[in-house]
Amino acid sequence: MGFLLRYENVAWYENGRVRILDRRIYPVGVEFVVCESYVDVAAAIGDMVTQSGGPPTAAGMGMALAAYEGRDLGERDFLAHMEGAAYALAHARPTTAANMAVITARSLGVAKAALEAGESGAAIADLIFEDVIDRLNAHYARYESIGRHLCGLIPKNGIVMTQCYGETVLGMLLRADRARGGGLRFICPETRPYYQGARLTASLIHDMGYDATVITDNMPAHIMARRGVDIFTSAADIICMDGHIINKIGTFQIALAAKYHEIPYFATGTPNRHHPTISTTHIEERYPALVLESMGRPHTLPGVKGYYPAFDTTPPALCAGIVTDKGVFQTNELDKYYS
Amino acid sequence: MGFLLRYENVAWYENGRVRILDRRIYPVGVEFVVCESYVDVAAAIGDMVTQSGGPPTAAGMGMALAAYEGRDLGERDFLAHMEGAAYALAHARPTTAANMAVITARSLGVAKAALEAGESGAAIADLIFEDVIDRLNAHYARYESIGRHLCGLIPKNGIVMTQCYGETVLGMLLRADRARGGGLRFICPETRPYYQGARLTASLIHDMGYDATVITDNMPAHIMARRGVDIFTSAADIICMDGHIINKIGTFQIALAAKYHEIPYFATGTPNRHHPTISTTHIEERYPALVLESMGRPHTLPGVKGYYPAFDTTPPALCAGIVTDKGVFQTNELDKYYS
Repeated sequence: MGFLLRYENVAWYENGRVRILDRRIYPVGVEFVVCESYVDVAAAIGDMVTQSGGPPTAAGMGMALAAYEGRDLGERDFLAHMEGAAYALAHARPTTAANMAVITARSLGVAKAALEAGESGAAIADLIFEDVIDRLNAHYARYESIGRHLCGLIPKNGIVMTQCYGETVLGMLLRADRARGGGLRFICPETRPYYQGARLTASLIHDMGYDATVITDNMPAHIMARRGVDIFTSAADIICMDGHIINKIGTFQIALAAKYHEIPYFATGTPNRHHPTISTTHIEERYPALVLESMGRPHTLPGVKGYYPAFDTTPPALCAGIVTDKGVFQTNELDKYYS
Repeated sequence: MGFLLRYENVAWYENGRVRILDRRIYPVGVEFVVCESYVDVAAAIGDMVTQSGGPPTAAGMGMALAAYEGRDLGERDFLAHMEGAAYALAHARPTTAANMAVITARSLGVAKAALEAGESGAAIADLIFEDVIDRLNAHYARYESIGRHLCGLIPKNGIVMTQCYGETVLGMLLRADRARGGGLRFICPETRPYYQGARLTASLIHDMGYDATVITDNMPAHIMARRGVDIFTSAADIICMDGHIINKIGTFQIALAAKYHEIPYFATGTPNRHHPTISTTHIEERYPALVLESMGRPHTLPGVKGYYPAFDTTPPALCAGIVTDKGVFQTNELDKYYS
């Protein structure tokens, strides 16, 4: 397993603190943001310290920390405190609030049950931590299956274009490919403004012994026209039940280029019943200043404006299928996943 | 006129030296690369010190410098020296070699005529310089007409998406828009890896009193889907007679997104008879390391590969028309431009 896929390098609760790998810096530096309160954890999620599978894990770890913080409160105050933490952590990023709420609700359930069983706040923190690890293990098992199904869609020694960083599915895809002898190669658009594709995806692939080539975000269509690309695949922040896919900004236009070049686009993940249609989603807009600089240095005149939508929407017609743990589904039949 | 459109800020021959604005740094810094030989000028062009309309101007100024350098040579050696300079300057960048050769051949012609008239090398340098300025003035007059035709295709107060930096046409478009009362707004993808869109295009637009918004290169399709964009337009390094357009990497996928959203894409420039078909062109590949870093800082693990094609090809079917000084032509009727 690559450095980025080890649990303790994502987000980790221990002794009243949550440690989160700062993915805005990795791999140029390996630094952790240490949070002393759940409010710090929510702020770190909002500030993009972690992303992809990171925020739900960090939110769960934040709930463990909240229990530790509230260890001296009476029962009623403790519950109110935990409910406040659940709300703050779930809403740390707007687009994926529904996903995060699943985790924080689960941690809240663990806390309530433990409270009824007479556990102390510090013990509840440990119980929530263990539950988050259980969830991670279940998540990894589900993604092992997704990785296997995805691998089956790619020819041996094929060339895969990705977008941004879908950590678990990527690790599991490499594991599945290794089991059949290896040989996949990857093209990774760098994913401005945070460069997750260059910093995280390409680094993970290389770290696991595979061939990774970074390109800038204006190159995918040209690469598809000039070089062989067998598949475009991405994770998804939200897969609506109507087949729309919300993922990191750029996914939509790569999917458009893939369609034009008759290269299949497969998104991976789980259809999201919190989002029956695209109209229930909200594309998060982040600080415009982030597109007016690079690596902290400005690159245009003061007074020029910026605009930074963090995600985009790929319509169902551009997607060849959703790869789930139960197999591949067409975008117009996602309710079958649940039946 | 904006800072970037003044002749002396592009490339300038004076007293045995050529001074070129370093567009890799502007506007964060205003620095000039000073060349003491035509070899330095060719190297500066190859190193991307200047781009868009810059390289032909720099090549012409380099020819003036070459004449100055050869001022003490005998007639036969002087001519051989000038021919060497013409070749080196024309081939400083592969994709646009044919365009550059037009300029250097012209300067060579000036040198030969002056030599026959008995002029000295230093005087020939000045004559070449004056001829380059004449060419610039003629170029500006032609682009004034292109800017007027382009303006006529855009609704008043319309929103224009651009790609990279097409200096002269942009300045002339703004001038034409100002003449009808102004109000155009611009969306500028930043154009990695050199950020010409952010650094040069947005800066020029803002400097001329217009509204410019920078986005990253993975956003154009999303912006077209969510916000009004009236037109996508770009300059072109080569407009083949068969209607294929070679321009800065990224143009192709923005044209694809524009087509999908039924937004017209108009390229600007002159159909190029040196390139009857796309098969006569060559897409320049530059140093892969440039896509593995940003602002000089690496952003992935050592060992990850990079790939950097500097231009791409937009097929004629994605382009609504070529805006020339003689009006707008369909991509399948470009020979009419010359008839």
